[in-house]
Amino acid sequence: MEPPLHAPMPGAEALAEPLRSRWSPSIFDDEHRLTRDQVATLLHAAQWAPSWGNSQPWSFLVAERGSSGHDVLVRHLSRGNSGWVPRASVVFVTATQVAPAPDSGDGKGWRGGDYALHDLGQAAAHLTLQARAMGLHAHQFAGFDREAVHDELGVPPWYRVVTGIAVGVRGNPDDVPERDREREQRERHRRPLADFVWGDSWGDPWAAP
Amino acid sequence: MEPPLHAPMPGAEALAEPLRSRWSPSIFDDEHRLTRDQVATLLHAAQWAPSWGNSQPWSFLVAERGSSGHDVLVRHLSRGNSGWVPRASVVFVTATQVAPAPDSGDGKGWRGGDYALHDLGQAAAHLTLQARAMGLHAHQFAGFDREAVHDELGVPPWYRVVTGIAVGVRGNPDDVPERDREREQRERHRRPLADFVWGDSWGDPWAAP
Repeated sequence: MEPPLHAPMPGAEALAEPLRSRWSPSIFDDEHRLTRDQVATLLHAAQWAPSWGNSQPWSFLVAERGSSGHDVLVRHLSRGNSGWVPRASVVFVTATQVAPAPDSGDGKGWRGGDYALHDLGQAAAHLTLQARAMGLHAHQFAGFDREAVHDELGVPPWYRVVTGIAVGVRGNPDDVPERDREREQRERHRRPLADFVWGDSWGDPWAAP
Repeated sequence: MEPPLHAPMPGAEALAEPLRSRWSPSIFDDEHRLTRDQVATLLHAAQWAPSWGNSQPWSFLVAERGSSGHDVLVRHLSRGNSGWVPRASVVFVTATQVAPAPDSGDGKGWRGGDYALHDLGQAAAHLTLQARAMGLHAHQFAGFDREAVHDELGVPPWYRVVTGIAVGVRGNPDDVPERDREREQRERHRRPLADFVWGDSWGDPWAAP
């Protein structure tokens, strides 16, 4: 049995699953493995995200714990991420195209630079929510040496490495450093709607119920 | 009763709801209205998306059909979007901060320019999926004069208007032009995983099952 979720999210109660219970835990079970079917389903969720003109400007490197790609990533994690990320079952390293490919006469060339980051974010969100629907947890992170990972994993210059998405099941809090345990327990907060939602023009309040 | 969904999505069958049945219809019922509670729940879904350092770099203008904000948007739609977008119950105009605010000594100032578009995309995906979970449909679009809308809705210069998200329920295909009816029926396609998923380094195939 998975331990109970520990991070209250005041205001998220009305959301549908899997959105309601999605959060970013920092304690993963470092013996758990995903099946290849599970990894494929997560990738299919990303694949079916919407994108500008159906440009699908996303790529993923699958770094399963113990693989050589995973070793590269782990060596370049920030100090704050070096404790918890390596314990996850798999990390998806995300990348998006930021310039046309030199050989882009292939008919499915890059078209949407303005929306590439936006749509990569959508694909990451879909993957993350699909994980939650499967009883898994996902924790996205950006704290790693993205230039070094870009180079060592052979990512082409016209792509940019953006995030890692750590996926797995929750582990035993006693197995991790105090810092990660404490991070799990923090109540989650968001800006109130009145801070970022407007009515007929910017600055006009939208009348929330 | 809503008409059956018409766009096949081969490969999406294994996904969990609301991801599995999410798609972008172009025929909305132009008499349907969302309640304010429904609009608030959609915004709460966006609010609870993950973001870089919890920066939450998103803003939304709520343009309900018939409002003055909606009138501004409709005047600036591209020709291809001018038929179907105005019929939706509400359009969320999305924006993200692309430069520090002049008065950003307020302690919650902008920190994440590199991830602003990425995380706006996540919030848009959460809103879109929450809509589907509520029996609604959402169709994101970028085809409008974003500069004109930016100016006429009073968006500050340090924000960029990015997309519209049209939300509503499906309408009667006989009420819309042939062009929009035809768009609904098209089978949806995505690049195969082998085109954008890699193993231990870029170009190494990941062995999908």
